[in-house]
Amino acid sequence: MQHSTISSDTAELPPEAVLARLVDAAMARAASTEGPSTALVRVVPDLVAVGLAGSLTASAGALVALAADAAAPQRGARLWGQGRRAAPRDAALANGFAAHVLDFDDDETELAMAHMSVTLVTAALTLADCLPVPVSGRQLFAALSAGYTVALALGEMVNPAMYRAGWHATATLGPFAGAAACGVLLGLDSGRMATALALAASLSGGVRGAFGGEGKPLQVGQAAASGLLAAQLAQAGFAAPAAALAGPRGFLGLHGASARAFSLTPLPPSGFVVKAFPTCTAIHAAAAALLEAVAEVPAGIPIERIDCSVDPFVPSILLEGLPQSPDEARFNLAYCLARAALDRRLGPDAFRAEALGNAEVTALMARVHVHAALDLPKGPSGVATGARVRVQAGGRDITRSREAAPGSAAAPLSDGQLLDKFALCLEPFCAADVAAKHFAALLELPAASDVMAVLGPLLDLTPLSSPRHSEQPS
Amino acid sequence: MQHSTISSDTAELPPEAVLARLVDAAMARAASTEGPSTALVRVVPDLVAVGLAGSLTASAGALVALAADAAAPQRGARLWGQGRRAAPRDAALANGFAAHVLDFDDDETELAMAHMSVTLVTAALTLADCLPVPVSGRQLFAALSAGYTVALALGEMVNPAMYRAGWHATATLGPFAGAAACGVLLGLDSGRMATALALAASLSGGVRGAFGGEGKPLQVGQAAASGLLAAQLAQAGFAAPAAALAGPRGFLGLHGASARAFSLTPLPPSGFVVKAFPTCTAIHAAAAALLEAVAEVPAGIPIERIDCSVDPFVPSILLEGLPQSPDEARFNLAYCLARAALDRRLGPDAFRAEALGNAEVTALMARVHVHAALDLPKGPSGVATGARVRVQAGGRDITRSREAAPGSAAAPLSDGQLLDKFALCLEPFCAADVAAKHFAALLELPAASDVMAVLGPLLDLTPLSSPRHSEQPS
Repeated sequence: MQHSTISSDTAELPPEAVLARLVDAAMARAASTEGPSTALVRVVPDLVAVGLAGSLTASAGALVALAADAAAPQRGARLWGQGRRAAPRDAALANGFAAHVLDFDDDETELAMAHMSVTLVTAALTLADCLPVPVSGRQLFAALSAGYTVALALGEMVNPAMYRAGWHATATLGPFAGAAACGVLLGLDSGRMATALALAASLSGGVRGAFGGEGKPLQVGQAAASGLLAAQLAQAGFAAPAAALAGPRGFLGLHGASARAFSLTPLPPSGFVVKAFPTCTAIHAAAAALLEAVAEVPAGIPIERIDCSVDPFVPSILLEGLPQSPDEARFNLAYCLARAALDRRLGPDAFRAEALGNAEVTALMARVHVHAALDLPKGPSGVATGARVRVQAGGRDITRSREAAPGSAAAPLSDGQLLDKFALCLEPFCAADVAAKHFAALLELPAASDVMAVLGPLLDLTPLSSPRHSEQPS
Repeated sequence: MQHSTISSDTAELPPEAVLARLVDAAMARAASTEGPSTALVRVVPDLVAVGLAGSLTASAGALVALAADAAAPQRGARLWGQGRRAAPRDAALANGFAAHVLDFDDDETELAMAHMSVTLVTAALTLADCLPVPVSGRQLFAALSAGYTVALALGEMVNPAMYRAGWHATATLGPFAGAAACGVLLGLDSGRMATALALAASLSGGVRGAFGGEGKPLQVGQAAASGLLAAQLAQAGFAAPAAALAGPRGFLGLHGASARAFSLTPLPPSGFVVKAFPTCTAIHAAAAALLEAVAEVPAGIPIERIDCSVDPFVPSILLEGLPQSPDEARFNLAYCLARAALDRRLGPDAFRAEALGNAEVTALMARVHVHAALDLPKGPSGVATGARVRVQAGGRDITRSREAAPGSAAAPLSDGQLLDKFALCLEPFCAADVAAKHFAALLELPAASDVMAVLGPLLDLTPLSSPRHSEQPS
């Protein structure tokens, strides 16, 4: 599919026209009779598994304790991995938080510059879980397609400026994406869909300064809950001017994009990354190159030095120094490389609280040198998607480079790798063969007459053993 | 009290130091043994009355319907004016919405450039309503003082740039103010209070483009709920870096204020306005001058023309054209002046849906001329707080001017005027003598051992008669 540009004129459009074009694009995509691509179908199992894994963190547990406070256990929507329910907005908040707290959920690096699925899938599934009539697979993917369309279109209008300035696009775009998806599930007409998106502008927020703390998944959970709320209030008859989204003092104006054209991007777009590691996407290519390099180093040979070259933009996203918490460690390139070099893998166990402060890792971190390189091939966003790593060990220099993050459209995870990730996330909940059955069932979701009949048993799983993970909010 | 400047250096401070100073200022104010000023004591009855009046709108009812969905009626916090309860965050959302939907709640025009009390009083009272131990009057005003301190300090750092750019300061500052107030009620220490404020940065949002629709009160209600949530999660052990609030990619940096000094402003500050009319504060001085001028016009003499001079900034806040909804009408200077000239008052009844589209008002609106005047005396913010109005009627020219908004520190409402407003707001709920008793009891709130014992019976009032107001979301 070619990108089709919705507006080729560069003249200022009135806010109403911008909003109407956005609504038309989202609703046309929802109404499309083309089924979802395989890549899009794989999004749901991946996101749900990551959310179940995240539900085990102590911070997700704290949110659930607040959310479940006044909720009757048999009403509302499922709190993933908890075997109980809560009021829909609270469930969307807790599920969105859980699905992002490990930073293992899919990401899109070119247009939305956002984790698109986390707000979309959590908002849509939470709503589907408490609607009086079943939601079919066709309806779910129509809703998700509308949400992705909105996230990509708005992202194209405001990025990269918004993300570079310091706004966290996952959280700022999430309410719009979620409102569009929930609006489709609620059957809103164009007028009410426009209102839902305009109300989402009132609920948009989230800052990159929160990276390295629990504010990051919190603002993502809030975005999921806000998208749901905006759609529900539009359905209830709320009114909101188009200026809230597309006016000079609305979302677009405040992010410096008053009436730009946007494309109808293929789904998933070329910048889409299903994460291979529970770290910032910007660490992925380097970690993959490193793992290839250390595979050449025989066991028992100490690693003397690691040099890593990345795009100059990458260090500006990341954190430095010794990580004090799992949340900081996921954004620390030196930590991730040192840990991966010693473990020869980079899984969720590398980011448990007890994994931090390991003396061997700390010692190797001091020998990791990160370089901002201008000679790496640039991706479509103007930022290099690849990385180069040199490992010195046993008198040898081993250099490996990757042009794209593992899990990206250019280097997608195989079915086996995706299933491995799914089973790894579900390990605390069920045996591998049970996980494989859930995985297979979820790949058939587009044909389901009731998606919650398929997903419910998975979302209702609770951990096989207590106590829960020892990862504590610090 | 003199303003005392907390930081006189202009060098860049690290985010941790900025946040620590803010926390210290808030907690010192909370710990002060000085009782609240009379003006501050008057805030609570005024805000609660406005919230009860707002709870009658159809849009507040729609929010309540969503909020109450999964709540047990005897648990959680009161939904003001509904005779029922909901989960605390839902109650804060609904109560904050109701207290702002009529735009009749107090405002601060110089530093915070925000309706400060709406997020503070609703978040604090909602939390007080579901804590296991009673909150005393001393504790309540300590919490409110901490919240006002934070709103004013952050406002001084980011405004007027933030407000002028198009951010709605009531909504963007509200989560911080509410987090500080709720943090005091929860007994957070300095470290957790810092975390609460850093988490609030993740939940800050709200755009002026939403003015004229229900997104405006929605983003205010969301701010109240977010402040409460941030404090609860800090208590639960969440972690958040100071950079989320005070770093270059956090709240201050994104609003162009990385490490500026701030003052310990007296409470309430000089820019504080208890509203006399349920309209934008920027309309107040002009409406008051007009009412004085038309008082000189004998009944039966038609008004030929109205000229109104205001600061050039004022029209940029307001809406023009024929208002299509009560929300638009409150921000329309020509509508407010025409309506006030014909009714010889400007009360809530001027903003009922059935009051719009009145032919006489529409005809007079066409003869209202608004002028951006440079010759009005400027207030401390650099914007004229006053207005000048000329009325032509029966061959006479009557000019009146006001240097300050009625209800401002320079022209405060008398006790009688405040009681009149209180009774007017409570008219649908109780007789005037009952309202007067509630009012008197609320003025003694600082001495109460349990504020909810005093406030509960008032907040539990339900309308005397159905149907509710006909003001519909359009």
